Amino acid sequence: MNSSMVRIIIAHIMKIEAVFLLLPCIVALIYGEKEGFAYLAVAAGSAIGGWILGFKKAEDKTLFLKEGCVTTALSWIVMSTIGALPFYITGEIPSYIDSCFETVSGFTTTGSSILNDIESLSHASLFWRSGTHWIGGMGVLVFLLSIVSLSGGSTINLMKAESPGPSVGKLVPKIKASARYLYLIYTAMTFIETMLLIFGGCPVFDSITLAFGTAGTGGFAIRGDSVASYSVYVQWVITVFMILFGVNFNVYYFILMRHIKDALKVEEVKYYLLVILSSVIIIFINVRNMFDHAGDAIRHTAFTVASIITTTGFATVDFDTWNTTCKIIIVMLMFIGACAGSTGGGIKVSRFVIIAKTIKKEINSYIHPRSIKKIIYDGKPAEHVMIRSVNVYMATYILIMTVSILLVSFEGEDLVTTVTSVITCFNNIGPGLNKLGPTCNFSFLSGFTKLVLMFDMLAGRLELFPLVMLFHPRMLKELVIGKKRR
Amino acid sequence: MNSSMVRIIIAHIMKIEAVFLLLPCIVALIYGEKEGFAYLAVAAGSAIGGWILGFKKAEDKTLFLKEGCVTTALSWIVMSTIGALPFYITGEIPSYIDSCFETVSGFTTTGSSILNDIESLSHASLFWRSGTHWIGGMGVLVFLLSIVSLSGGSTINLMKAESPGPSVGKLVPKIKASARYLYLIYTAMTFIETMLLIFGGCPVFDSITLAFGTAGTGGFAIRGDSVASYSVYVQWVITVFMILFGVNFNVYYFILMRHIKDALKVEEVKYYLLVILSSVIIIFINVRNMFDHAGDAIRHTAFTVASIITTTGFATVDFDTWNTTCKIIIVMLMFIGACAGSTGGGIKVSRFVIIAKTIKKEINSYIHPRSIKKIIYDGKPAEHVMIRSVNVYMATYILIMTVSILLVSFEGEDLVTTVTSVITCFNNIGPGLNKLGPTCNFSFLSGFTKLVLMFDMLAGRLELFPLVMLFHPRMLKELVIGKKRR
Repeated sequence: MNSSMVRIIIAHIMKIEAVFLLLPCIVALIYGEKEGFAYLAVAAGSAIGGWILGFKKAEDKTLFLKEGCVTTALSWIVMSTIGALPFYITGEIPSYIDSCFETVSGFTTTGSSILNDIESLSHASLFWRSGTHWIGGMGVLVFLLSIVSLSGGSTINLMKAESPGPSVGKLVPKIKASARYLYLIYTAMTFIETMLLIFGGCPVFDSITLAFGTAGTGGFAIRGDSVASYSVYVQWVITVFMILFGVNFNVYYFILMRHIKDALKVEEVKYYLLVILSSVIIIFINVRNMFDHAGDAIRHTAFTVASIITTTGFATVDFDTWNTTCKIIIVMLMFIGACAGSTGGGIKVSRFVIIAKTIKKEINSYIHPRSIKKIIYDGKPAEHVMIRSVNVYMATYILIMTVSILLVSFEGEDLVTTVTSVITCFNNIGPGLNKLGPTCNFSFLSGFTKLVLMFDMLAGRLELFPLVMLFHPRMLKELVIGKKRR
Repeated sequence: MNSSMVRIIIAHIMKIEAVFLLLPCIVALIYGEKEGFAYLAVAAGSAIGGWILGFKKAEDKTLFLKEGCVTTALSWIVMSTIGALPFYITGEIPSYIDSCFETVSGFTTTGSSILNDIESLSHASLFWRSGTHWIGGMGVLVFLLSIVSLSGGSTINLMKAESPGPSVGKLVPKIKASARYLYLIYTAMTFIETMLLIFGGCPVFDSITLAFGTAGTGGFAIRGDSVASYSVYVQWVITVFMILFGVNFNVYYFILMRHIKDALKVEEVKYYLLVILSSVIIIFINVRNMFDHAGDAIRHTAFTVASIITTTGFATVDFDTWNTTCKIIIVMLMFIGACAGSTGGGIKVSRFVIIAKTIKKEINSYIHPRSIKKIIYDGKPAEHVMIRSVNVYMATYILIMTVSILLVSFEGEDLVTTVTSVITCFNNIGPGLNKLGPTCNFSFLSGFTKLVLMFDMLAGRLELFPLVMLFHPRMLKELVIGKKRR
């Protein structure tokens, strides 16, 4: 393990977080809030800490997959523990474990909250809270990419650990260039959404934070009722942008490069839109009678479906009161998640497409035993490695979920609350069902359960393996002792 | 599709079922019940029907995998629809769809019942009901094996469609011989259990039917409270035999052949026993305080764990009243199921062992990128085909389960009832949770939901693919038109 490089990267992360922590200071300055000092202090601390940690340069700059995994997992944990400090120092969240839960939930773009009264927070803290979504939102992908390029290390291995889903690696080989494009697309889309919201009469502060929450597919809002009390226009704009941020960013990249043909080849997006459409239709039929106007029913249905499948977690309505069919579909959408290569979480549509094609191939092999058909994905034969990695992912996914559910069950809550708490955190969504429905929050859970759910949020966001690697006894040992392969 | 051979085999099945249907006639004779006539009539009808259907001999006796799948699925449906007739004719189950549900549940060794008052049934019907478990219990494996050998067709392809789990195929190459041994083991174990129950003071009729239910890992009992009102001794005997019938029959075969070394190599069994032991310990800790004596707590815990993991479904206690941790473990056990090559259902321990080894290998490949370790299963390198088939099975399993849950959700019941109805039927267990707990029954569900659950019971018992194949549009067409490859 090249521990020195891990240390150097973590040091960089701390310096960058210091810069980001200055933004809420500015917000505090605008609104004249004393909470700004807490952010300033933590920013200073983080910068100094990063400077000390990164003081001794690394001799060997090589990074292998295992260093990549460990660094990724570690940097998210470091970012969260530092990012949680202002909430704790200002006293806005009295418990440090709760502060960490809120921050992990933010950086992993989950959006599960322990806050009973969101609106009592200072503007600085509301801004930071939504900002963590935006920072975490682009996923580990581009974020760490740039850090690693800063540190002069190899990037390719980190890519493998970072890419949210199987298909991000297909972006241009020149990773730095593509990172810049992804930044551009992401920022531009956030900006457009903010503008559309402001033009629709939404206050500027609300518009920015809502756009942060949408872009990162996070789901923290600044009002207690999430997005319910905003205008119909605002809700529709957010619906559309949630769906857009759930699309595989390869599509936008191809469009930007004017490779329209390639953009249309991204199969996943068709299925993604198909799932959204069919879910909206089925749920609409089921909830139509709960609303006076069909327009309201369709708006709440579209919003909820978009919010859940993209794993954003905003709410305009308490879907926990909907019937069982709706709830089953919502839970199904929680698992499906958004497209690979988007800011969304969940298992990802592409994995399901590949699995479905595997099943189809197997059945065909029974009917025509002599046919040798390859699985075609995105117009190309699917590599064996890809199929295998999907299977291993699914197996690990089920394993982690099962163990987590068992651990959370010690809490003594009912089955639905227990199971959906893990589903919603592991898939980085936000609200669950029953006691964790859209109108509820996670504050009543024990510290142990919160730790389990934090692990799930991180594991889900980091495509499982980096976190599993970090807690592998052998890796922990190598990390501390720093021996073996340099 | 060689439709003639399919027809011939189905005709054989009908004749054999006619023979089995004579047994309840004898029971009716002993107890002087008029219900015996219904069984006699159906037996006669089944024999005549089988004779007519099988009158025209098949020219080509070749069977390929697709005929094997289709025949398997069809024969279970035919057996169930015929086996349901006596319940309907005697009027003991007034609705034919309910009769079918009860019989499918019997032959698939599920044990889910639609009966409100089991004890009002005649002895003949109680015997037939438990008998379907015993007939179905040995699984499709040996049962159809003998039929196919009777019909002179090839057996090897049916094996592939039938074997419950990945490892039955390892039994001696001479299939007929091994079939006879399996018969012997199965019958001998059933006989020993019956004797042990009788010696323990359990009435003869009860002992036989309870042994049928245990051997088939079915779960139909002849009392309304399942096994709760039998003596402590009877409950312990059943506990032990449930666990024994959930063991991979290869082990017994090896022991019979005095290949003790080979018997000890069957890895699956160790994990199976380990899962049982750890579940008993965790549940015991959780329910200890619900009972006055530790002995009662351990007995009910062991009974429940054995009943659920072997997918039997007998109950001595209403585990729906236990806490969430216990329920989570029970649901986990429902999925795990018994060993492959046993009479139990579920996903099977061996599949989980293989999946766990795949995950371990993947993580190792991250830590030591250059190591090329093969997955070792039962002391031999696991074949690629086996790993692939486990993955495809899991994917199909999740797909069928998800669609079923969605369809059952139209029923409008709560989440836990909806989800566990599918889990319990698909894994051939019997009781679910909430409205389908051990003290409840399935009668209140709609006809549509019962059809979905019947499909699930059959799909689960037949390792998914035979049933999926049967309902494949192309297969249905080939079956009716009978064209293509002969």
